[in-house]
Amino acid sequence: MSGATKYIHLDGPFPLYRGVALPEATLAYETWGELSRDRDNVVLLFTGMSPSAHAASSLEDPSRGWWEFMIGPGRAIDTSRYFVICFNNLGSCFGSTGPASVNPETGQPYRLDFPELSVEDIARSQREALRQMGISRIHAAVGASLGGMSALSYAVEFPDEVDELVIISAATRATPFAIAIRSLQRDCIKTDPAWAGGYYREGEQPQEGMRLARKMGLMSYRSPQEWQHRFGRTRVEWMDEPGTEPFDIEFQVESYLEANALKFIKVCDANTYLYLSRVMDLFDLGEHAGDGDPVTAMARIKARRALVLGVETDFLYPLWQQQEIAEGLKANGISAHYMPMESIQGHDSFLVDKTRFIPVVAEFFSEPGT
Amino acid sequence: MSGATKYIHLDGPFPLYRGVALPEATLAYETWGELSRDRDNVVLLFTGMSPSAHAASSLEDPSRGWWEFMIGPGRAIDTSRYFVICFNNLGSCFGSTGPASVNPETGQPYRLDFPELSVEDIARSQREALRQMGISRIHAAVGASLGGMSALSYAVEFPDEVDELVIISAATRATPFAIAIRSLQRDCIKTDPAWAGGYYREGEQPQEGMRLARKMGLMSYRSPQEWQHRFGRTRVEWMDEPGTEPFDIEFQVESYLEANALKFIKVCDANTYLYLSRVMDLFDLGEHAGDGDPVTAMARIKARRALVLGVETDFLYPLWQQQEIAEGLKANGISAHYMPMESIQGHDSFLVDKTRFIPVVAEFFSEPGT
Repeated sequence: MSGATKYIHLDGPFPLYRGVALPEATLAYETWGELSRDRDNVVLLFTGMSPSAHAASSLEDPSRGWWEFMIGPGRAIDTSRYFVICFNNLGSCFGSTGPASVNPETGQPYRLDFPELSVEDIARSQREALRQMGISRIHAAVGASLGGMSALSYAVEFPDEVDELVIISAATRATPFAIAIRSLQRDCIKTDPAWAGGYYREGEQPQEGMRLARKMGLMSYRSPQEWQHRFGRTRVEWMDEPGTEPFDIEFQVESYLEANALKFIKVCDANTYLYLSRVMDLFDLGEHAGDGDPVTAMARIKARRALVLGVETDFLYPLWQQQEIAEGLKANGISAHYMPMESIQGHDSFLVDKTRFIPVVAEFFSEPGT
Repeated sequence: MSGATKYIHLDGPFPLYRGVALPEATLAYETWGELSRDRDNVVLLFTGMSPSAHAASSLEDPSRGWWEFMIGPGRAIDTSRYFVICFNNLGSCFGSTGPASVNPETGQPYRLDFPELSVEDIARSQREALRQMGISRIHAAVGASLGGMSALSYAVEFPDEVDELVIISAATRATPFAIAIRSLQRDCIKTDPAWAGGYYREGEQPQEGMRLARKMGLMSYRSPQEWQHRFGRTRVEWMDEPGTEPFDIEFQVESYLEANALKFIKVCDANTYLYLSRVMDLFDLGEHAGDGDPVTAMARIKARRALVLGVETDFLYPLWQQQEIAEGLKANGISAHYMPMESIQGHDSFLVDKTRFIPVVAEFFSEPGT
């Protein structure tokens, strides 16, 4: 956690969407900008599956955040105007309560005794935290990927408390292809003998399973088009001898995946990965409607306007799902602007394609009267 | 191996494309139809990575073959007219010499002592086998996926011996995305402790690694579109209690992958998977041209006509690669017919989409004068 991390302890036990209550729950968060006197300039930024609350640098923590180019004074989400809050998701391992946290009932890490988690819990825990801070209404809920699902959940469950929505590369419910990709990642982790049925010891987590899972994850976050352009068939340049392992890394694309995966497994808890991966499979906005239809559920949303962004090369949360969200919002009378982007970086485009994403988000936030 | 399987032992040691020679090599094969007196009606069918030589049923083996709907009397590849031969690939484990075969120098299975294999070796071993059978020219070389790469290799290396080509969902060289997908599958196998550095004992192969690899393979053989249509978000119906394993299978798509993978690992040798997976990454038709360009290499091909088929939803061997092959052939004066298909079954479409594939292949083989 960074020097900018603050913590908020939710009052009382926290009841979860699928039953069971957490005896106690803490959320880590960071903020940028100042809360206005009327408390009407809050931008709540939901994260994807893996990031911490460190979305941008600040005086307290000058290190680059995961959406650095988007958030700051004068930036698209202008912190001289808005008070931006980003929480580490409930269930995550960067300061918020999750399966790696100590279970107060046993004094040991929860591991798999952590109860079943849902996107709805991620949304509601942040709403409770905001209320404890004295914030009862947010100007905009913003999120990409799992963050977009969380923002939709928030807007449906607390319709009177959200003015605007920015949904990026998300879905009202996952496709079977996305489910399969995530299921296989969980399988990689569970198959690692070091996972030990979920009750691994501190410092003994299933590194190999995590390494495989992360590689697979990365493949689903980028696109064939990007890699064709970025790596082609370029070989690895070995410092001395070529690889000595059988079937060793030979192409740059293989080396890129390996290096990224090795970095990731140092910071992420394996069970956290399982829980947060699964919430995306299970999420179905249609559960919030009598007829099971996400569009019907969206009728509950009372936001004034929305921006829905998606990317052509994203096969994890494909463009047709963004269009579905935008049309669902429009069908329910919300002024929704749908914008498909031509980025080649797939699902991760919002994290890297500054050129395309900054102007669109900036325009949305700078519209007069907002 | 089936009752229809025949074996041919290649004369002398078999020198491999990347150096080293196999002390001996046997190929398993099946045939359908009769060789004409002029020996001019041979259709050589190259397989993909996993199948055996049992492409179709016959009197000797009435069980369904992997391309049953395409091959037989009166079928698209009409065995009352053509003599169809299908070999099990060199390096495979269904009767041909591969890493699971006994190394005559040690009396033990080769395992990783099997030398590095190439697509060129698959092509040339079949050409040697044909010569030993007294066949010096083939009417058509046909192949999908790895089979298409093998057919291209054959046509480039033995240009005077191939009259026609049918290339389906193949490539002159793999994309980095395809390499990454296969690299991760190999990683799954190698990471399984049971792999034992490649020298596992008979009956003790890395089942878990194979299971994960096969699931990943399957995901790359099908398409998001097919699964959306086929599975949607339908849940598994448990016979009694819901899954008791943590993060157990919940959606039908997960159950489909699991069942298929469990079936597959019973029949396939792990190292065979590694070798045959790697040949596709390393294959580069451009190696057969001074300038490294696959199109230049295709100038060596002297086939009279060609059919090149690809599928819109195939992201492993995408459509643009089929177009590249067709245009390369045309640029070199070959009458090539390129036909993109709208099948939703992705890379595997040629195995399942009868409705689209049969008429096109039938028309090609029935053209007058052939």
